[in-house]
Amino acid sequence: MEFRGFYNQPKTSDGIWEDNKIDENLIEGLAASAFNVDMPDAEDVLVEIFGDNNVPQVVSELLNKRELQMESLGALPAPSERLAALRQKLVAQELDGFLVPLADEHQGEFIASRSQRLSWISGFGGSAGMVIVMLNAAAIFIDGRYTLQVRSQVDTDVFVPEHVAETPPDKWIRKNVSNGAKIGFDPWLHTPAGIDRLTMACSAVGAQLLPLDANPVDAVWQDQPPLPLGPIIPYPEALSGQSSAEKCCIVAQDLKDTGVDAAVLSAPDSIAWLLNIRGCDVFNTPLALSYATIHQTGEVDWYVDKRKLLKETRASLGSGVTVCDPTEFSEGLSALGRAGKTVRLDSSTIPEAVRECLLEAGADVAAGKDPCVLPKARKNTVEIAGARQAHIRDGVALTSFLAWLATEAPKGGVTELTAAARLREFRASEDHFRGLSFETISGSGPNGAIVHYRVTPETDRTLEPGDIYLIDSGAQYLDGTTDVTRSVFIDDGNGVSAEIRDRFTRVLKGHIAIATARFPAGTHGSQIDALARIFLWEVGLDFDHGTGHGVGAYLGVHEGPQRISKVNGGAPIEIGMILSNEPGYYEDGAYGIRIENLVVAREIPESISTGERKMLDFETITLAPIDRDLIDAELLADDERAWLNAYHVRVRETLSPLVADDVREWLEGATTAI
Amino acid sequence: MEFRGFYNQPKTSDGIWEDNKIDENLIEGLAASAFNVDMPDAEDVLVEIFGDNNVPQVVSELLNKRELQMESLGALPAPSERLAALRQKLVAQELDGFLVPLADEHQGEFIASRSQRLSWISGFGGSAGMVIVMLNAAAIFIDGRYTLQVRSQVDTDVFVPEHVAETPPDKWIRKNVSNGAKIGFDPWLHTPAGIDRLTMACSAVGAQLLPLDANPVDAVWQDQPPLPLGPIIPYPEALSGQSSAEKCCIVAQDLKDTGVDAAVLSAPDSIAWLLNIRGCDVFNTPLALSYATIHQTGEVDWYVDKRKLLKETRASLGSGVTVCDPTEFSEGLSALGRAGKTVRLDSSTIPEAVRECLLEAGADVAAGKDPCVLPKARKNTVEIAGARQAHIRDGVALTSFLAWLATEAPKGGVTELTAAARLREFRASEDHFRGLSFETISGSGPNGAIVHYRVTPETDRTLEPGDIYLIDSGAQYLDGTTDVTRSVFIDDGNGVSAEIRDRFTRVLKGHIAIATARFPAGTHGSQIDALARIFLWEVGLDFDHGTGHGVGAYLGVHEGPQRISKVNGGAPIEIGMILSNEPGYYEDGAYGIRIENLVVAREIPESISTGERKMLDFETITLAPIDRDLIDAELLADDERAWLNAYHVRVRETLSPLVADDVREWLEGATTAI
Repeated sequence: MEFRGFYNQPKTSDGIWEDNKIDENLIEGLAASAFNVDMPDAEDVLVEIFGDNNVPQVVSELLNKRELQMESLGALPAPSERLAALRQKLVAQELDGFLVPLADEHQGEFIASRSQRLSWISGFGGSAGMVIVMLNAAAIFIDGRYTLQVRSQVDTDVFVPEHVAETPPDKWIRKNVSNGAKIGFDPWLHTPAGIDRLTMACSAVGAQLLPLDANPVDAVWQDQPPLPLGPIIPYPEALSGQSSAEKCCIVAQDLKDTGVDAAVLSAPDSIAWLLNIRGCDVFNTPLALSYATIHQTGEVDWYVDKRKLLKETRASLGSGVTVCDPTEFSEGLSALGRAGKTVRLDSSTIPEAVRECLLEAGADVAAGKDPCVLPKARKNTVEIAGARQAHIRDGVALTSFLAWLATEAPKGGVTELTAAARLREFRASEDHFRGLSFETISGSGPNGAIVHYRVTPETDRTLEPGDIYLIDSGAQYLDGTTDVTRSVFIDDGNGVSAEIRDRFTRVLKGHIAIATARFPAGTHGSQIDALARIFLWEVGLDFDHGTGHGVGAYLGVHEGPQRISKVNGGAPIEIGMILSNEPGYYEDGAYGIRIENLVVAREIPESISTGERKMLDFETITLAPIDRDLIDAELLADDERAWLNAYHVRVRETLSPLVADDVREWLEGATTAI
Repeated sequence: MEFRGFYNQPKTSDGIWEDNKIDENLIEGLAASAFNVDMPDAEDVLVEIFGDNNVPQVVSELLNKRELQMESLGALPAPSERLAALRQKLVAQELDGFLVPLADEHQGEFIASRSQRLSWISGFGGSAGMVIVMLNAAAIFIDGRYTLQVRSQVDTDVFVPEHVAETPPDKWIRKNVSNGAKIGFDPWLHTPAGIDRLTMACSAVGAQLLPLDANPVDAVWQDQPPLPLGPIIPYPEALSGQSSAEKCCIVAQDLKDTGVDAAVLSAPDSIAWLLNIRGCDVFNTPLALSYATIHQTGEVDWYVDKRKLLKETRASLGSGVTVCDPTEFSEGLSALGRAGKTVRLDSSTIPEAVRECLLEAGADVAAGKDPCVLPKARKNTVEIAGARQAHIRDGVALTSFLAWLATEAPKGGVTELTAAARLREFRASEDHFRGLSFETISGSGPNGAIVHYRVTPETDRTLEPGDIYLIDSGAQYLDGTTDVTRSVFIDDGNGVSAEIRDRFTRVLKGHIAIATARFPAGTHGSQIDALARIFLWEVGLDFDHGTGHGVGAYLGVHEGPQRISKVNGGAPIEIGMILSNEPGYYEDGAYGIRIENLVVAREIPESISTGERKMLDFETITLAPIDRDLIDAELLADDERAWLNAYHVRVRETLSPLVADDVREWLEGATTAI
């Protein structure tokens, strides 16, 4: 198997950027990244790359190219010539079909425009999905969130929508693929766990699933954006709390303990954590797309496009880190194989191509977890202190927004889009702001009941007095990642219905049950998930999403392995892990309620007289008022009321000194004891 | 691979029992089973087998032989000649080691004396464990329950004890087995899931794990008991609620839906459920050891020793059931393979030998669940009605015992053994009693803190006034299986300490939380497990066992797939499933608390005004007072107190008409409202 796609670029020279010339490829790569020219450090970065005098021209070209890249994706539904060209290519390669997942080479949640192959071929803009293109048929697999959206974006006469829960791709293959068919796939875009299931389905009908050296979509996508070339900055120990060398040492010990010689890392957040660096290749998460191998010695081979490395970043890397050209990745894996090494791969995240390459070269592949995932999830005291600080600033921004909203929305002029934009402005004016951590969910009235609602100009709705408005948003700050949801009543002078107050209060009781839970070390999130639900269950209600997900330290707003959900798996909640606490309730076509704070797991500090066990509880770090108008105080038990009032005291005392006078006044009222 | 061991007996003739002769083999097989000569129907069965005039002589010989069989196992520690003989045998077979699991060919919880190979070789009498015999070393793997017991029963100079959580067998192999070593195993006693892990460990050190045609322990165990020949009775539709033909049809549909041609069943409780039969090959569970294959047509090949089939049983079998001699099992599997069939195996219960045989013959083996497990777990209305009736009789017996205990124990003459025996007498006098469903856990004071305590003459303790006495027991009745635990205070006139009342009340609150939980259809037991624990967690305490296990309908007292535990897996709780609800608390060296009732999951009967979801809750079917002396009423919330008082009213009103006068009087006081 050839190493293509991600690694088909010419080997770059060792000294990069240093020419200070306006290199078109660099500008295209920057445009294809999430590099934000509005960030305070953007000019310094551009000066380093392109020289003092070129910045205005570079910025203009960059924005121009980015617009062109976006346009190359934009047509809805995608022109049918794209599918025809792909099928022609398949025929030329003697294939009967091809898999187009919504995935990049790192199984990222947010992917670069270059990797939007599914969107390019079909027009679909959702956040999860897959297309199977056969010569005479095509199916698009989507989940329950996208059953409507798929019809507005995709030509469903051509791509037949399939609900993934009813007809997953493997089931579809069993029904629709004939004996003898050859279906290609791009082994960089699928994990071993994923592809094994599809291989079994193909083999059950006598078809073959074949890894391809080159992605045929790339071959026919003429103006496909290049790989992103987002500059990589060092993440100083003052923020990370631990040197990269120490982290490598910890991971190496894990490899020794489990008897493996090396682990291949394909998750960019693992690499960012391990090497104390941050990139900007994709939106919402400060990732540098790259691969790495960590050896039992603690030495790391980092396969990264050297053009992304700023001088200070390169200087910050420890002596154990070897920067390698991505074109050398294949050889690096083969060398492990030839030496008969045992190599750990995480089959839920690694590309199938990596497994294949190792196996072909004779390596002993050991299934196991990415060794960075757990230590990354256990935040150290510096990271937790950073998170607290980031949440204070985020609380100032959100509280200022809520005060603004309380004044403006009842007048009738605020829409979902303008509200989200206003909140972004408040956040952007805070120190260390680096961007949003995900696209804001801003839904009023019935739109609030759509759990993964994404407002567009077409769906934008004015916040009407009497609406329940749900806003779920978060930001990336250099010292932490935030994620917070509030549902607020847009005052209409008549107050909130008893039903809505009942529902909101049950959600709040669930939120408080998690916030105050005490549980033994070793407890999984799935064990405490029900605490967030039982008050809804009492009256025959529930919500259809998890109660909490892990959150990174200026990294992914969704990170594992911990979570609070019905589904077990992952890992126990440990000291230092950050989680969201976000129960909700959704009345279809009417309103949505969600109350989300982030919490940090900690060992219970006071000694409990009768305790025998190591017990944990949560510190809530999100700071913003919870709408008192929506609460039915009668439904709260004494200790629940006490929690709410104490939380509001903390919000007020922490934020009041930091907000504008009018906001302070509003906050006073919003945090009055009930 | 030869089909040996279980199937090495000569093919039996078609007409069995019919000679009415005293056949030594039959008596030995009966003796090796759990056939109970004290049961009301025992004489009829013996008359059918041996003729009218032979019963007294048969009974006498049977009991005599059973005693000899038990003696052949009994020596503690096992004489060292046994191990020496086994090693000699291994050398003769050019093997360096052999695995001796505590398992039979059906992965049963209770196994026949013939299968007690681990006990025979080592003396160990616990309920779980494994021995690895190498030529120069031997290890016995035990869990935390048996760290003390292993030292009193086993020569630990010869068999080095290993704690299975710290050093599981695969880890031990990696550390202790040399390159080139050949270790044998009996493929009938290991599952594919189990053996695959050990095979990987062996391969990692360059050793081989080899399936053997014959078990070398059997070769050197001179007086090994024969296979049990417990007579098999029909289980009428009046008790099972569904014909065997209907059940076969349901299972066949499952096979069709999942695209497999047949499933091999090795779990005797699955076969008992499917064919509406019950056996008595092992103690505590009415199982007939046998195998079966169910085809997509609904037809069943039942591989069972025909000598176990009573005439009425044979007559009760549907036309779709073919009774096959066990010696034909190998050929039946091979035929599936030769026909290229896809055969479902449950790799957590099927013997590795079955998988091997199918694969060698060319079958397509599909991993999947035993198709009987889920429909068996969903009890129908007839089975639930039976369970309720069985629990009323069991409640009469347990309440009569508790009344007796309240009078006798404070006098000081009751021991753990005599108490357990007295309870058995109460149960045995009830209609439809067939035996205990497990060995009674009867632990007073510190012995109550040993979760899986098994009283022996050596550990037997008198119930002292002031003790907390824990009794966990259950019975098999023709119409249902029971399992109940009560902790009671042996009155000393001084009352119970505040600490114990606090602990007991927290356990009770957890018990009530499960008993009153409402949850949506699809909820797993692991999601609600914490409800039983949070009141202990509040003060830093917990208990180290599951909250609940599935229970059969006159079948296993432990059955899957449902359970309530920290560990996810299994299946959601569905309508009709029976579960135990048994939180506890154990103060090492002092006392044990456990409150266990059985519950049946049901759809919430009343319509809930605001409900949108299909919701379930539990009906508690166990009926016996919970010791009021141990409750701190101040710790109970109003609704908890209401539940307790209502439960006690139901216990009193249901049982009072059925118990003796003195018991009724005691029950009146024991169920007074608090």
